[in-house]
Amino acid sequence: MTPAMDQLDRLAVDTIRTLAIDGVQQANSGHPGAPMGMAPMAYALWTRHLRHAPAEPGWPNRDRFVLSAGHASMLLYSLLHLTGYDVSLDDLKHFRQWGSITPGHPEFGMTSGVEATTGPLGQGLVNAVGMAIAERRLAGEFNRPGHEIVDHRTYVICSDGDLQEGITAEASSLAGHLRLGKLVVLYDDNRIQLDGPTAWTFTEDVLARYAAYGWHTQRVDDGNDVAAIDDAISAAEADDRPSIIAVRTHIGFGSPNKQDTQKAHGAPLGPDEVRLTKEAYGWDPDRTFFVPDEAAAIFGRAVDEGRDRVTTWEAALAAYGAAFPAEAAELRRRLAGRLADGWDAGLPVYEPGSEVATRNTSQDSIQALAGSLPELFGGSADLSESNLTDVKALGHDHFEAGHPGRNLRFGVREHAMGGIANGIAYHGGFLPYCATFQTFSDYMRGSVRLAALSGLHVVYVWTHDSIGVGEDGPTHQPVEHYAALRAIPNLWFLRPGDGNEAAAAWALAVERPFVDGAANGPVALSLTRQKLPTLPGTKEKARDGVRRGGYVLRDADGGQEPELILIGTGSELALCFEAADALEADGIPTRVVSLPSWERFEAQDAAYRESVLPRATRKRVTVECGVSMGWERYAGDEGAVIGLDRFGASSPAGTIFTAFGFTAANVADVGRRVVREGLHGRVGTSDPSIGHPHARA
Amino acid sequence: MTPAMDQLDRLAVDTIRTLAIDGVQQANSGHPGAPMGMAPMAYALWTRHLRHAPAEPGWPNRDRFVLSAGHASMLLYSLLHLTGYDVSLDDLKHFRQWGSITPGHPEFGMTSGVEATTGPLGQGLVNAVGMAIAERRLAGEFNRPGHEIVDHRTYVICSDGDLQEGITAEASSLAGHLRLGKLVVLYDDNRIQLDGPTAWTFTEDVLARYAAYGWHTQRVDDGNDVAAIDDAISAAEADDRPSIIAVRTHIGFGSPNKQDTQKAHGAPLGPDEVRLTKEAYGWDPDRTFFVPDEAAAIFGRAVDEGRDRVTTWEAALAAYGAAFPAEAAELRRRLAGRLADGWDAGLPVYEPGSEVATRNTSQDSIQALAGSLPELFGGSADLSESNLTDVKALGHDHFEAGHPGRNLRFGVREHAMGGIANGIAYHGGFLPYCATFQTFSDYMRGSVRLAALSGLHVVYVWTHDSIGVGEDGPTHQPVEHYAALRAIPNLWFLRPGDGNEAAAAWALAVERPFVDGAANGPVALSLTRQKLPTLPGTKEKARDGVRRGGYVLRDADGGQEPELILIGTGSELALCFEAADALEADGIPTRVVSLPSWERFEAQDAAYRESVLPRATRKRVTVECGVSMGWERYAGDEGAVIGLDRFGASSPAGTIFTAFGFTAANVADVGRRVVREGLHGRVGTSDPSIGHPHARA
Repeated sequence: MTPAMDQLDRLAVDTIRTLAIDGVQQANSGHPGAPMGMAPMAYALWTRHLRHAPAEPGWPNRDRFVLSAGHASMLLYSLLHLTGYDVSLDDLKHFRQWGSITPGHPEFGMTSGVEATTGPLGQGLVNAVGMAIAERRLAGEFNRPGHEIVDHRTYVICSDGDLQEGITAEASSLAGHLRLGKLVVLYDDNRIQLDGPTAWTFTEDVLARYAAYGWHTQRVDDGNDVAAIDDAISAAEADDRPSIIAVRTHIGFGSPNKQDTQKAHGAPLGPDEVRLTKEAYGWDPDRTFFVPDEAAAIFGRAVDEGRDRVTTWEAALAAYGAAFPAEAAELRRRLAGRLADGWDAGLPVYEPGSEVATRNTSQDSIQALAGSLPELFGGSADLSESNLTDVKALGHDHFEAGHPGRNLRFGVREHAMGGIANGIAYHGGFLPYCATFQTFSDYMRGSVRLAALSGLHVVYVWTHDSIGVGEDGPTHQPVEHYAALRAIPNLWFLRPGDGNEAAAAWALAVERPFVDGAANGPVALSLTRQKLPTLPGTKEKARDGVRRGGYVLRDADGGQEPELILIGTGSELALCFEAADALEADGIPTRVVSLPSWERFEAQDAAYRESVLPRATRKRVTVECGVSMGWERYAGDEGAVIGLDRFGASSPAGTIFTAFGFTAANVADVGRRVVREGLHGRVGTSDPSIGHPHARA
Repeated sequence: MTPAMDQLDRLAVDTIRTLAIDGVQQANSGHPGAPMGMAPMAYALWTRHLRHAPAEPGWPNRDRFVLSAGHASMLLYSLLHLTGYDVSLDDLKHFRQWGSITPGHPEFGMTSGVEATTGPLGQGLVNAVGMAIAERRLAGEFNRPGHEIVDHRTYVICSDGDLQEGITAEASSLAGHLRLGKLVVLYDDNRIQLDGPTAWTFTEDVLARYAAYGWHTQRVDDGNDVAAIDDAISAAEADDRPSIIAVRTHIGFGSPNKQDTQKAHGAPLGPDEVRLTKEAYGWDPDRTFFVPDEAAAIFGRAVDEGRDRVTTWEAALAAYGAAFPAEAAELRRRLAGRLADGWDAGLPVYEPGSEVATRNTSQDSIQALAGSLPELFGGSADLSESNLTDVKALGHDHFEAGHPGRNLRFGVREHAMGGIANGIAYHGGFLPYCATFQTFSDYMRGSVRLAALSGLHVVYVWTHDSIGVGEDGPTHQPVEHYAALRAIPNLWFLRPGDGNEAAAAWALAVERPFVDGAANGPVALSLTRQKLPTLPGTKEKARDGVRRGGYVLRDADGGQEPELILIGTGSELALCFEAADALEADGIPTRVVSLPSWERFEAQDAAYRESVLPRATRKRVTVECGVSMGWERYAGDEGAVIGLDRFGASSPAGTIFTAFGFTAANVADVGRRVVREGLHGRVGTSDPSIGHPHARA
């Protein structure tokens, strides 16, 4: 079809194309055009560069490939099938069907060889930046002269849409800064997006922008020129900067009526156009899901080549193990994701009466865990002095272009930070964490969702977790975030109430993959800026209690049956504790339940939940300085919810808490009224006349 | 202090600086360093370029100024005070205090002259892009030869952090594409961010990047050189591209011990350093909040100059009105934000039995409203053919560089889209709307929050609102989003159940500022991809019912007291309706309540709420194919919640709904068990073994 491809290359490329066409047509749903345009670059990459092992898809030193343009999933599934991964022709025929391993967009954990969940644009390229960071740090930790045990590249195919998303701008700026030379991005420059030509919205000079970021840039003018693409990839690999190669392609290549139009983007070509396209390729239009033997042979080499690579690597690992036995054992532990013995021995303990912010106790925990768990690797979005996330053992040791150090600096790039943390988790060998102010969890929510969906073990350190932020005001005070984050399936949201609970929360965050019955996934720590008192009982009960999500921190005095249950999280737990004193003095037997994690509490058996929140004890007050939404689950019809259904205000924190009713006296008063007057429902305490005129709910 | 400033300039500049220093010191909280560095550029801009009218801050044709680096708020408050806005010295002394008009970060609506709420980095610059778009379109609509009634510029001061955020990358690429020549950005290039030197994370060539976007770029090497800054601004104004001027400044300028360090960034200088700094300026260290008469005179000119500008403009408007009376009347209406008479006359009505997706009925509503309300102005993030948001009356008339047309194309830039919509709303004269898939509301959440906090009238058109998305799979299926969006204070989240409810939702979205007792703010429409049946009763009841948030769509047969209430939203409302048939046939009197908006329903008086959901009728079933969180509020202790507490799956939509229990038969079955067996609580119907291994809650 083009002079730049020899006969056999063309056959192989058209095999990818026709599989993608047929998969989409069979599903009657999907995106055929992008795979048709991308096929030559994918072919060049997968047959001439990618060092993988289809029969051992978990080989740690494989090159990583990320299809950032996840809508082109049939390209990836076709490649996986052709190169010998556990993806059958039948799987391709069940593209986008219930129970198949070939969902509409690639999902990590679902399909052998899929390195990242993609589809939400931008995420994949950013994951790849994380993978390249992980590779460099792991190499820096474990490689020794003559023993390059960790040494692989990360490749990406991305689209116009990926490059329009801000998340890729953030990550690409950082990748250039960090000089991630083993990262190679192929840009499918097809000049068509969903609405029409990219010229309608996207006329910037992409390569000039990437040059400004410090990347190596190249252009291939003919997207069918496999040799030119091959050469460009080689040049990219040889450069010590991250590389982007803009490959001029044609969406729907070969489709007589849809090539170079958005009609080829998001819908099947249709039976007639499929026939015409196959005829244009010189293929039999009556055959579907056809893999010519010659094409099968070309792609099929990957299996044996991969086995050889793994064998060679394992021999190298054995030699490394002989020379550096401790390092080799540690590397195996890290790659297996096992915790080191005694990993939690150094976790801090706080005595009742001490006062410390949970961001500070989190800092203590990080220091304690960092020694036993070198895989703990992360940092902050330019707030390390506020989030208190640096590992300080080695001085302020940072990951820099020439030095793959311990702490990451993300810059003011929250969304990319989330995506990079995901990429580090995808890579393996690390437990990534990342940090910003909790209110800016909004900025990274797209990445948080994908961590949850993909079951990635990532820890979020979100400090400044409430109106306790004080003077910075409502733009910086999370209010709706507890609810909004608890809403995300498979994210564990932990809001510890004091130092011991914060240490327990860190422990649980580390242990998540080992908690019985739990799927893997991300853990969020919601931490205060302001000091909190250490409460009696947490020293003994928090570790188990936080793991269970909720527990009786303090029961009614003298072994009485509680008449009232106060339920609190975070900074409001201390208010419940203090209010209980007043209520007991008033003759109301009061239990205080700490409920740092709804997700964990719901996962406990009914008997445990009943032991903490007996259904018969219906007089309850929940206290949390965020929106009340959802708290009815625990308050019940006869309980009251003390929440904050409005934005905050700029003022010293104490004033705000008092103005909005977050005082022990008010909690006690509400408790009394619940017991004695039947008060129930939301008891928002804020005067709507205060604060910002638009801040009301 | 520097040769580039004459004596008087220096006095004026140092007045800004010392006010900022004193405000932060008095509050013992805030960011002194940025204002100290930015003061000369702000001085040059505000005294030599900005065409504003402090005594009439709402003058529609004023130049807009946005302090994107909102943490430098004392710079803005000082300028507002000095130039005669309604900000007193006493207000400056109450910086960051309870009830003051000088909060930690600027808040729109709180302080005269504050054009945008800023602080969350990146938003302000993006708002400014929206303002420049608004200005161009308004000018395009109303100006006539010789009558340049709408003609102003938009200026921004931004920081390193603003430029690291992806949202500004998105908006800047679009601004370059659209050639927004009246936009001028001053970049406070001080090379320090919170963690330390920008060199630690941010070494890209910013100006080369902006040149790649198609911007005019300049550099001023000495941030104290007022004349050079002045010249650069003039050159920027003369260029027909958007302009960025990198001004090399020094954070904490003049502070002997903190200049050029992050110590000057986020904390007061401290009393001793304040004294030393004032001495370095040649000021009396014992005076605070001091405005020398000469400085006051320079800045104070703004009041009279502004009055003259307004007088001139009003004369021009009068001349315009004489020549073009209809246009002038319409412009006045638009600027006042009044609705046109008969604006809703053309809203579509659907007959029971018809089947249509609410994204399509939304499209019908948009067409109907577009004629009567030309202020309706927006578009989609490259999904216009899926979101169905284009106004088609004029053909596909788009806003382009040379043609300020009716429909905006945002490209794949959701976060910037949200910020630009906010900017259009800040500007005035428009009712902006913007669209993407609902799952990608996550990408724009930072902007949505600010719309809610700032009381901006923006409409979000979020289609593909559930697992009904089908084959695209869990990455594209919102599940947690209903809860997460309802959690945001002051956002109205509307999930209409059929075409008539969708039309009513559009009407309510338009009317929001005129709904009794409601603060202004954004409205979200959650719309289906798939067809829904038009339900009996919505034609008559939806307009008032949606406005009230919830209503009895269908009551128990034969006027009986209902024994059971089914409560549904969106696509699940039809399931409730059909289930009610089955339940009535079983002898269970059943009411169906449509609850498209929790926010509106909660705003109704107790009597109305009781009439819809009588407290005595405790057997209830809520049905929504999203996370169950929050539904306990309406289900109560004896009710059941049918929700989806996990991610979705890739498959034809019908299969997914059935597999997850969203069928009329299952709703009826749950209803029976609630009534007859006392079933209550969440009745998640999903088999955890299906779908993605990590997709479970």
